[in-house]
Amino acid sequence: MSLQAEVQHLPTAGQTPLHRLSDLLRVELRQVETLLNERAASPVATIPDLSSYLIAAGGKRLRPILTLACARAVGGRAGAATANLAAAVEFIHTATLLHDDVVDDSELRRGKAAAKNLWGASASILVGDFLFARAFTLMVETRDLRILDILSRASCVIAEGEVRQLAAIGQPDLSLEDYMAIVEAKTAALFEAATRAGALSGGSSDAAADAMGEYGRRLGRAFQLVDDLLDYGGLTSVIGKSVGDDFREGKVTLPVLIARERADAAGRVFWDRAITERGQRDGDLSQAIHLIRATGAGEATLEAARSEADAAKAALAKAAGGVFAAELADLADYCVERIH
Amino acid sequence: MSLQAEVQHLPTAGQTPLHRLSDLLRVELRQVETLLNERAASPVATIPDLSSYLIAAGGKRLRPILTLACARAVGGRAGAATANLAAAVEFIHTATLLHDDVVDDSELRRGKAAAKNLWGASASILVGDFLFARAFTLMVETRDLRILDILSRASCVIAEGEVRQLAAIGQPDLSLEDYMAIVEAKTAALFEAATRAGALSGGSSDAAADAMGEYGRRLGRAFQLVDDLLDYGGLTSVIGKSVGDDFREGKVTLPVLIARERADAAGRVFWDRAITERGQRDGDLSQAIHLIRATGAGEATLEAARSEADAAKAALAKAAGGVFAAELADLADYCVERIH
Repeated sequence: MSLQAEVQHLPTAGQTPLHRLSDLLRVELRQVETLLNERAASPVATIPDLSSYLIAAGGKRLRPILTLACARAVGGRAGAATANLAAAVEFIHTATLLHDDVVDDSELRRGKAAAKNLWGASASILVGDFLFARAFTLMVETRDLRILDILSRASCVIAEGEVRQLAAIGQPDLSLEDYMAIVEAKTAALFEAATRAGALSGGSSDAAADAMGEYGRRLGRAFQLVDDLLDYGGLTSVIGKSVGDDFREGKVTLPVLIARERADAAGRVFWDRAITERGQRDGDLSQAIHLIRATGAGEATLEAARSEADAAKAALAKAAGGVFAAELADLADYCVERIH
Repeated sequence: MSLQAEVQHLPTAGQTPLHRLSDLLRVELRQVETLLNERAASPVATIPDLSSYLIAAGGKRLRPILTLACARAVGGRAGAATANLAAAVEFIHTATLLHDDVVDDSELRRGKAAAKNLWGASASILVGDFLFARAFTLMVETRDLRILDILSRASCVIAEGEVRQLAAIGQPDLSLEDYMAIVEAKTAALFEAATRAGALSGGSSDAAADAMGEYGRRLGRAFQLVDDLLDYGGLTSVIGKSVGDDFREGKVTLPVLIARERADAAGRVFWDRAITERGQRDGDLSQAIHLIRATGAGEATLEAARSEADAAKAALAKAAGGVFAAELADLADYCVERIH
């Protein structure tokens, strides 16, 4: 179901802040959808086929919604430049997903077979490159060098963080600092760019754009921390099929760092073996989940996410008001609360 | 050997137009080398390690030289913006090579083991992304939206052409139009962007920049056609280790298109089998080379390249003069003559 269809099926007061923002931004999001379709067009059929597979796969459009909502939250309109920017941000995100699937050798993405399993790794790499280049042209069309500055720097941070994450795989003694740099890069940098540039495109002052960028950055950190915890089933849920990807890939995340830090000798031996050796044994994931809960590492991770969400709201309050700011504040809480 | 070292070892009157241009642009090229080193720097060691492996592997710096020479040929200086642009063009080229190596599963690049065989395919993909993002920031720093327009559009054409080439693998009945679109994308688009934007950064009029862009585009086509012929050993040489890559990968190029077009029934059966089935038999490459020469497909390809080089020189004559224009004209001839 396309986002447009999704939005039309929503009750006026949606269940989550994301639904409510989608509803408030219905007109602008339709413009963004049109751009996403138009700019993924190409006479080379693989490009629209693969792009629309991923784009129609129903991403939440979280990043475009952030961009549009930030433009509105600072009292601006979300005009053509904002729509271009929102579409560019979604293309950068989609390009990153395509390359991540190849790098991580993922089987699933957004609940469907990863594109690389249908079109091959080569097509995923090259269509990712195409979408990144298209994002670049969309941004150039805004004629706004501040937006280009923000997004080009963010693209560097994202790619650098991806390489850092790759190098960190199978390193159980990853430093907290390195872990946070990875979170910053893989999620917070694009959230920050989307919110900062979104605010600027809505006509905000530099100071207000900085505050909105801080909101996005903190929101991104909260979002990623909760995602990292959800990969171990959250605090209480049973093991589902969407659990354990990070563990199987040897990715060290905050729940693991804290659980290993707090482990007894046997626990540390377990973590070092499970993270260092790929191809874990039967029962290893259950054991990992047990240790994360028993040591309180899950609660500690959630606490860190809560603190980021609070910092996000504090930054937001400095720069924005009205219904969009209220929904963005709720979104920060929702990011953490979705764990339950 | 680094380019600086190479240049210092050159006699004042170098043997090729590329050597002579390197010599004339020694100071500007040193600036570009500095930028390439500075902007590939990162605390994530894989990034500078992998980049410097590829960058120090001694690319000819053909594209940066074109950028700088075009700025000078229109009577301009090659200032900071031109150096940024030249470095950006080299980064885009390097990023493309990194991704191509993964897509083509190449063993060698610039005479050394492909980076992916040393650092892995994942690192090659992600460092390629990083260099592309860095190219983008280098261009934004020029604050010149015309340059950003040109390079962002070229990046789309390049990526689109890579996907087109991927889809064309193993298609012996590829149309001449599709083949030229691939050549346009894989080589001509970046040559055109480098020369057009180079001229603009040197202060040229739009009309002169268009002419210089046409020079670059035609030069790129000539260059690629000759490369495609060299992959079958040129017109006379024996089979060397650097021959036959396209053939083994099932890439259909102009020598093959013409040879198949001119083949008798048995020849056509050979081509269709050899291009369609991967994993050719012993002796297939020798047979391919024999057919390309016997049907005159080699000469016809070279003739097409010569005609592109002539068109390049005609465009150049409209916009540029002096020693740089003379060397750029010689470069067009050299592109074709290097076959002998």
